[in-house]
Amino acid sequence: MSVLYQRLAVIGCGLIGSSVLRAARAAGLAQTYAAYDRSAEVRSRVAALGLADDVCDTPQAAAAGADLVLIATPPAAIGPMAGQIAAALAPGATLTDVGSAKQAVLDAFEAIAPEGVFAIPGHPVAGTEQSGPDAGFAELFRGRWAILCPLPRTDAPYLAAVARLSDFWTGMGSQVEHMDARHHDLVLAVTSHLPHLIAYNIVGTAADLEDVTESEVMKFSAGGFRDFTRIAASDPVMWRDVFLLNKDAVLEILARFTEDLQALSRAIRWGEADKLEALFVRTRAIRLGIVAAGQESAEPNFGRNRTT
Amino acid sequence: MSVLYQRLAVIGCGLIGSSVLRAARAAGLAQTYAAYDRSAEVRSRVAALGLADDVCDTPQAAAAGADLVLIATPPAAIGPMAGQIAAALAPGATLTDVGSAKQAVLDAFEAIAPEGVFAIPGHPVAGTEQSGPDAGFAELFRGRWAILCPLPRTDAPYLAAVARLSDFWTGMGSQVEHMDARHHDLVLAVTSHLPHLIAYNIVGTAADLEDVTESEVMKFSAGGFRDFTRIAASDPVMWRDVFLLNKDAVLEILARFTEDLQALSRAIRWGEADKLEALFVRTRAIRLGIVAAGQESAEPNFGRNRTT
Repeated sequence: MSVLYQRLAVIGCGLIGSSVLRAARAAGLAQTYAAYDRSAEVRSRVAALGLADDVCDTPQAAAAGADLVLIATPPAAIGPMAGQIAAALAPGATLTDVGSAKQAVLDAFEAIAPEGVFAIPGHPVAGTEQSGPDAGFAELFRGRWAILCPLPRTDAPYLAAVARLSDFWTGMGSQVEHMDARHHDLVLAVTSHLPHLIAYNIVGTAADLEDVTESEVMKFSAGGFRDFTRIAASDPVMWRDVFLLNKDAVLEILARFTEDLQALSRAIRWGEADKLEALFVRTRAIRLGIVAAGQESAEPNFGRNRTT
Repeated sequence: MSVLYQRLAVIGCGLIGSSVLRAARAAGLAQTYAAYDRSAEVRSRVAALGLADDVCDTPQAAAAGADLVLIATPPAAIGPMAGQIAAALAPGATLTDVGSAKQAVLDAFEAIAPEGVFAIPGHPVAGTEQSGPDAGFAELFRGRWAILCPLPRTDAPYLAAVARLSDFWTGMGSQVEHMDARHHDLVLAVTSHLPHLIAYNIVGTAADLEDVTESEVMKFSAGGFRDFTRIAASDPVMWRDVFLLNKDAVLEILARFTEDLQALSRAIRWGEADKLEALFVRTRAIRLGIVAAGQESAEPNFGRNRTT
């Protein structure tokens, strides 16, 4: 891969930001690497880990002279951070982010991006339940989707900037998809936000039971619960922001989910065996579709599959 | 491990039954292995795979002369099957099962077990989303819990039978726990049955959306949804039975879950950031408890952790 940017500035060096620094450097996608994080402790870790050539004390200093500025703060801070650094952005720079809710970022970018700056909201669909600069790794984006939600611009320089940013994600091993921001938010509400909400909720419900101890829940968590606890260990601040920033889509999907769950509950109460089995046969087929589409291996993997 | 039983009869040779045959033989826990399955096709596969010395055409023939009879049919068939073979059970034989709902089995066993037969409901908390005799493997129970729910008997021969059955599961690599059947059903409703119900439901909800295509759902399933699809691919007949047999505990836990979900939904609608974050911090701590308790590694595992 050849160098795509002279100076990459990553603002916010948690799991995702630090992984971008590692992955971009591993692929040689930028000439120099600048970084900023609000936390002095994180900044020292980034320096100690050698993740950036230029660890800056202000976001403006990191952004200055960068031709790619990538904001990887918690979602609610992306818009305000874009506002803070707007004046420092170089003409011709690309401004992007990695947040899970895209319409809010698009609105913020449209409101503040100076003329001559290419604002392109982005979202790598990748992560783990770990947080912080030590949790990042260069392979995080490999084989994952990176979704870009470009502004409604069709001028050649903007399209060229979008193409270059696509190459950047491809260079880190991702497949790139372009999507309308609002549609992105609906798709992710289903495939990511609702699953996280449900997982947080079930773990909370389990913790509140009087007749089952927490140690019993942990002990027998291999029965399915364990997968939920992993999801429910994801970054609390990030997810608080995602649910609030993508409120409309999340509540819409959640309402449908709840409606379906009531119907399922009723089918159990009334012993409607056929209805239950029909749903379960159908959902199994969807899984087989995912496996067939190569999204995941169908091979049994000892010890990690959840159980009955 | 020394031989614990002269003749082990496994009735129902799906994922679990065939894994018991494999694991018991690998550990040398029985002298001879008998098997029966309702499906002629499964019986031929069991014979072709060499999983049993004696593949029988009737459950009575398999059970005859066996000192351990293990029923591994779908849950709703366990009671009726116990009734079918009752007359064929040898005096001194142990009758057990592997179903996920235990009070119903205990009631059935108490109703039909002839005097001199030791009926001991059991449940290995292990499995994968695969089904059938080809999906089984000898290591399935290794490091997993096997729960026994003995009858309220304190006579020495019964206690000796329970101890021997415990050794059988230990011999296949499991840790054994004794539990009251009703308590088992409540614990598993939380750690296994509700997670499966939720997973089935969310996959169904996603499939019904008009504005998001199934292929989009699959494509971006790495965002958390994928874990749910794996769970929702579990055996439809088995799970239909589990929900119906453990109806009371499942509906009780489901009602609490729904109540909590309504509160969470309200917190999102009204932008109660602190409430959301407090829950998410709490659920993360529970996960760390599970990891600390050694139930699962905290190591990142590339490509299998779910994502944002």
